[in-house]
Amino acid sequence: MTEVLQYNDGKVLRGAIDVVREFPLVLRVNDRELVTLVASPHDLRFLVAGFLWLQGFVASADDFLVLSVCNDYGIANVRIKGELPHELKPVLTSGCGTGVTFSLPQGRQTPIPRSGIAVGAVFELMRQLAQTSDRYKSHGGLHSAAIGDVEGRLLLHAEDLGRHNTIDRLAGEALLKGIPLEGTILATSGRVSTEMAAKAAQLGIAVVVSRTSPTDMAVRICDESGITLIGYLRGAKLTAYTHSEYILFS
Amino acid sequence: MTEVLQYNDGKVLRGAIDVVREFPLVLRVNDRELVTLVASPHDLRFLVAGFLWLQGFVASADDFLVLSVCNDYGIANVRIKGELPHELKPVLTSGCGTGVTFSLPQGRQTPIPRSGIAVGAVFELMRQLAQTSDRYKSHGGLHSAAIGDVEGRLLLHAEDLGRHNTIDRLAGEALLKGIPLEGTILATSGRVSTEMAAKAAQLGIAVVVSRTSPTDMAVRICDESGITLIGYLRGAKLTAYTHSEYILFS
Repeated sequence: MTEVLQYNDGKVLRGAIDVVREFPLVLRVNDRELVTLVASPHDLRFLVAGFLWLQGFVASADDFLVLSVCNDYGIANVRIKGELPHELKPVLTSGCGTGVTFSLPQGRQTPIPRSGIAVGAVFELMRQLAQTSDRYKSHGGLHSAAIGDVEGRLLLHAEDLGRHNTIDRLAGEALLKGIPLEGTILATSGRVSTEMAAKAAQLGIAVVVSRTSPTDMAVRICDESGITLIGYLRGAKLTAYTHSEYILFS
Repeated sequence: MTEVLQYNDGKVLRGAIDVVREFPLVLRVNDRELVTLVASPHDLRFLVAGFLWLQGFVASADDFLVLSVCNDYGIANVRIKGELPHELKPVLTSGCGTGVTFSLPQGRQTPIPRSGIAVGAVFELMRQLAQTSDRYKSHGGLHSAAIGDVEGRLLLHAEDLGRHNTIDRLAGEALLKGIPLEGTILATSGRVSTEMAAKAAQLGIAVVVSRTSPTDMAVRICDESGITLIGYLRGAKLTAYTHSEYILFS
């Protein structure tokens, strides 16, 4: 609890309230200090696994020889098969979230083959994302994301202060639990930026859906990667930006 | 304009809409490729100047020997006095924005001395931030931030896809135009995370105010740095998290 002073139209009150936690985690990989991730403090092994997977440093759960997170010291110790590239130049992304990657995101070369997805499944997954996030509301004002199957059933859910951390968390949990992500739907509470789109493409996700807007680069990446990108899903409405041919409306 | 398909309760329409732009800018400093910033495409020199200043690579406008931005190629060429540190480890911050820094944010050792700030000035600055951002609404869903003086008069305004980019932009514009920031008020549309608080402390800002919540680390940094941190400013209400003794309520 944090002591605060509250002011309301001339009246001054003192009290104590909960504040959202931000946790710095030093990530050591093969004895090298790679980065410090700043994230929400729960389930950090999923974040670490997903981050390293989506950076291309591991390709499967077997590539982790050691993956340990010490919350007390704020250190993740990871040992992976193979070596990290010698030089890593960070890309500082614009979006609302972790905001770094070591290479500029690219579209996927070979879009995953698939048949259509019923529009109802997309609405259903967003409904479940909102409902699940509501249950976590105690955290306060976090970003949330979910993976659903083609029927709109929720498979994975993640919350974090950082929008991109939610995707890393979903990816990491899927990797460690052996849940296949190809052809699934990714639902997110926030804006779809480059990183979100590129990470979805890397994961073989078929549909990305958000309550709000995508950026122009995200539209291009989804277009090139064969991803159906949907924004502004509210009530019974949505806007499809790319590959609407995969949406089944009847 | 981007071609889209819109769906509304069973009806399918085709049209074209504007999409928020995300612009990747490779930042070369002293012939070394430092990072790629991804940001909104306007006024990139302010972003570059502020980023390098807040990273501690320059201390004044005179330290820039060259500062040129080529929008066509997406490259900023910068030459600064002195050299960059040999090794740079990125910190991937949680917040909603650029989300990288090369060192973990710290509070300021010597809080700036000051007298109080009238509560009315804080409300006035937030009113002006909202009003100014409304005028830019064509951009759509961007983050905004402003610097105001102790009377709540708006001195600088910035918008960007990335929340932290708005602070770098304000800092860069102030640095290049010679506007002093010590003792000013920083108003932001979004959450106050570590980076926002640490950057405010570096700049000698006296009051940080937001419509939404701060994180726990931001509260600590503001506390240590002598910054008055105000959140949840809405209507005639606000919540002060740190150093409320500087707010004049009558």
